[in-house]
Amino acid sequence: MDSKQKYSIANIDPLTLSIKAAQEKKIQDSRDFFEQLVADYRTCGRFWKIYIEQELRARNFEEVENLFQRCVIKVLNIDLWRTYLNYVRDIKSKLPNYKEKTAQAYNFALEKIGLDVNSYSIWNDYVNFLKSVEAAGSFAENQKIMAIRKVYQKGVMNPMINVDQFWKDYCAFENQINPLIAKRMIDDRSREFMTVRKISKEYENVTKYLDRNSPCFPPQGTVEELRQKTYWKKYIEWEKSNPLKTDDLAIVAKRVMYAYEQCLLSLATHPDIYFEATSYLQQMSSIMEEKCDAVLAKFYANEAVNLYERAIESFMKKNALIYFAYCDFEESRLNYSKCKEIYEKYIEICDVDPSLCYIQYMRFLRRVEGIRSTRQIFKKARDDPRISYHVYVAAAFMEYFCTKDKNIAYKIFQLGSSKYESVPEYLLAFVELAKHINEDDTTRSLLENSIAEGKIPKDKTNEIWTEWLQFENFVGKLEDIKKVEKSRQAMIGDINQPDESESKLLIDRYKFSNLYPCSKYELKSIGYTDSNYNFAFNLFP
Amino acid sequence: MDSKQKYSIANIDPLTLSIKAAQEKKIQDSRDFFEQLVADYRTCGRFWKIYIEQELRARNFEEVENLFQRCVIKVLNIDLWRTYLNYVRDIKSKLPNYKEKTAQAYNFALEKIGLDVNSYSIWNDYVNFLKSVEAAGSFAENQKIMAIRKVYQKGVMNPMINVDQFWKDYCAFENQINPLIAKRMIDDRSREFMTVRKISKEYENVTKYLDRNSPCFPPQGTVEELRQKTYWKKYIEWEKSNPLKTDDLAIVAKRVMYAYEQCLLSLATHPDIYFEATSYLQQMSSIMEEKCDAVLAKFYANEAVNLYERAIESFMKKNALIYFAYCDFEESRLNYSKCKEIYEKYIEICDVDPSLCYIQYMRFLRRVEGIRSTRQIFKKARDDPRISYHVYVAAAFMEYFCTKDKNIAYKIFQLGSSKYESVPEYLLAFVELAKHINEDDTTRSLLENSIAEGKIPKDKTNEIWTEWLQFENFVGKLEDIKKVEKSRQAMIGDINQPDESESKLLIDRYKFSNLYPCSKYELKSIGYTDSNYNFAFNLFP
Repeated sequence: MDSKQKYSIANIDPLTLSIKAAQEKKIQDSRDFFEQLVADYRTCGRFWKIYIEQELRARNFEEVENLFQRCVIKVLNIDLWRTYLNYVRDIKSKLPNYKEKTAQAYNFALEKIGLDVNSYSIWNDYVNFLKSVEAAGSFAENQKIMAIRKVYQKGVMNPMINVDQFWKDYCAFENQINPLIAKRMIDDRSREFMTVRKISKEYENVTKYLDRNSPCFPPQGTVEELRQKTYWKKYIEWEKSNPLKTDDLAIVAKRVMYAYEQCLLSLATHPDIYFEATSYLQQMSSIMEEKCDAVLAKFYANEAVNLYERAIESFMKKNALIYFAYCDFEESRLNYSKCKEIYEKYIEICDVDPSLCYIQYMRFLRRVEGIRSTRQIFKKARDDPRISYHVYVAAAFMEYFCTKDKNIAYKIFQLGSSKYESVPEYLLAFVELAKHINEDDTTRSLLENSIAEGKIPKDKTNEIWTEWLQFENFVGKLEDIKKVEKSRQAMIGDINQPDESESKLLIDRYKFSNLYPCSKYELKSIGYTDSNYNFAFNLFP
Repeated sequence: MDSKQKYSIANIDPLTLSIKAAQEKKIQDSRDFFEQLVADYRTCGRFWKIYIEQELRARNFEEVENLFQRCVIKVLNIDLWRTYLNYVRDIKSKLPNYKEKTAQAYNFALEKIGLDVNSYSIWNDYVNFLKSVEAAGSFAENQKIMAIRKVYQKGVMNPMINVDQFWKDYCAFENQINPLIAKRMIDDRSREFMTVRKISKEYENVTKYLDRNSPCFPPQGTVEELRQKTYWKKYIEWEKSNPLKTDDLAIVAKRVMYAYEQCLLSLATHPDIYFEATSYLQQMSSIMEEKCDAVLAKFYANEAVNLYERAIESFMKKNALIYFAYCDFEESRLNYSKCKEIYEKYIEICDVDPSLCYIQYMRFLRRVEGIRSTRQIFKKARDDPRISYHVYVAAAFMEYFCTKDKNIAYKIFQLGSSKYESVPEYLLAFVELAKHINEDDTTRSLLENSIAEGKIPKDKTNEIWTEWLQFENFVGKLEDIKKVEKSRQAMIGDINQPDESESKLLIDRYKFSNLYPCSKYELKSIGYTDSNYNFAFNLFP
């Protein structure tokens, strides 16, 4: 099963059906299926939960432990965590130190996902667990009360759905213990609680349309997908706006990153989310640096690196955008050797087109080491059979703009000609350079040869003819212009009807940029179509 | 009434209704309407005929004569001509020399439109008229027979619909006179007639879908219009293929030009038809020159000039394409002073954009007189308040490519800057030149100033930002690149949502030509749109 290939957001039903079928089988028969499922959708809490529940039903506790270890830290999904906590609470109740273990698990959970908008049940479960613990003696009883109170007091200050209920329970709890002290404790907190209540409402609103259980499919740009993305971004923006109005930036950052992590559970296949998250961490790092807090500055920078690494190790394995962004981050930290490693890592992936990566690598080396190092990488690129003509074009123009050496630029193009002589885009770029060199004979012979030798497929010569025509319009005689038109017509005549194209050629002769010698309707009626017709300025052609 | 504005091929009913209404009025009340009608649709035989019939009904023979004089030579429409011939035959029958006058009229008509596919009725009417003439004495009788025979013998060799009938009538005619001689005369011709019959069938087929009575509307590029154009071109191509297999090129040319003239009655508003017709005449002139027939060479060249003149005096009055084609024709005949006249004539029209004409004029002068004359016209253009930035761009690059003088080119751009500083296309062209000059500071300060000074509307700066980014990618440091992005985001932030554009900017940073750091779907999902995205090679940006 390669689910990523077979399923998409628009075609999720077959996946749901196969999961149902697997659930009805014995776990030893469906384990392979579930393993593949959580490998393909490793961020989907729901799938992990289904898998674990199957193992639980068969009472395979060792497998269950293993599975929890594999997923809970990475997949911060409330339902999955509740399953985990219930498991710890119920299954381990026979162990001697089970109270401490369970309390530890709850504390850990609240640290990880306690700020979730739906975390009420975990707070509440924890309180109930603490209440259920038997306490012998007044000291133990007192400790128990303090432990419960601590959770209550933290929870009622935590914006979430049902915080009202938690507040009521807390008030009841205090009243039950000591009505007099209760009044003071509650009065102290009630004002702050009103704010928490208001924020909770906002929090609920800004998260209510989020689909937090859908598996990650490759981006499709569908309406539903874009809508979800917008909801996620609104939620993240809301956290960035610091709704708690705290002065502690670390708290804001923690909440923002929690939002990003939640988003990445559903949109792990979207490069822009990774980039925006790392970019936020970089920003935090800079802010901390400005505040001379070197420790936190380093912390956030490391977090950014961790996220980049996580991205390129999993869903972004072949996504050049994230590699480049990662490199630029390291370049800005002067970590040049790391940059090289990252560029090389991408190039070493077998089934990618490394052309753009070579170009970025060359540009990076030009910036930090100079043109000599760039040339070495260009040499390496030339030996790579996967590269496209773009690498030559980039290298040539880099020489032209940086070293101002037209000859090297020209030679690079000549070097590539043997490989890309049949690629019209390559030829057009070569002509572009020739026009920078500005020797009529060079430009003209380039145009002439490319077409005359018939290396470029006839149906792709159109832009080259237009280019040539424009060139002759600048420097040629009327006969030169007509000669180009005649050769063009002689060649295109095979493809189109000969007489039809006569007027069209004439329009190409007279047009300049987006100025045409006819009205729009006349052009339409003549059947003239120009790929640049609807576009802004384009001098050549 | 300005019918050209009000009506179109898709909205012809109101016009038909107004004509019906006018027909029901007295002619003195509808004359103004009809005058406007034939002024607006001067090639429409049907409208002329309706107008004339109204005058005829009122027996305004003087007006009728005048109207015929104004239209018959120009509008070679069978129905109109038949009306004319009937008028001559019927109305003039009281005049002493009416026989000669009428015969003259018929001969003239057959000369003009005798080769029309529907000309049978005119041939037949002529024969019937000749038959109806009383002949006193055997000499007169003989002459009458010879006259009739002449028309018959010419007509049966003329491909047209109903030529079969004409042939039968001719056979009957000869048999009636002398069955013995008839057999020989008919046998002599019957073989050749079989060919004429076959060609007539072809002729009928190739013309049967032509709509020959529709008034000329401005081109719209509608399906029906394109269909008609295709039919007309097929008919013209058929005539060019010399279906009569004659060795006399003049006959072929006469028939081809008849087809073009017929076409121009319906498609007089289509510049391509004029161009193709004149181009055919030029071709004929060249062929005759090659055959050393100076008289015919001159004749066809003159015909081409006549057609060009007719075009720019009427429907093509403001069509730059025809002016330019006319100029190129005269330039190829070394008629440079005539070229200047034509370019000047177009420039003198008040309500046109003369920019492209100035550019063509400058290019013409560069070709035939050199850059000095070009500069004079550029000076003239600069004083013309109607011109667009294109003229400066064309002039600057002409200097760059022809005189190779980068300084003049640069100065021209500077000259235009005061006028076009708020036109992004102008700035992009200026930057293009700066990149040819290839001095980093020039290019960078140009980009910086243009945007910094806020002269270009914010929503139009996108391409300039991309250009700047690409430029810094070639020569700048990472900080330079980021600086551009930051300024861009700061400006565009006002327009778009700030965070949304972050990833989009990153794509602009990394893309090269049509290579993108993401998949198509990822780009879509990020909301990245690039006007060049679907297009072929485009180095800058």
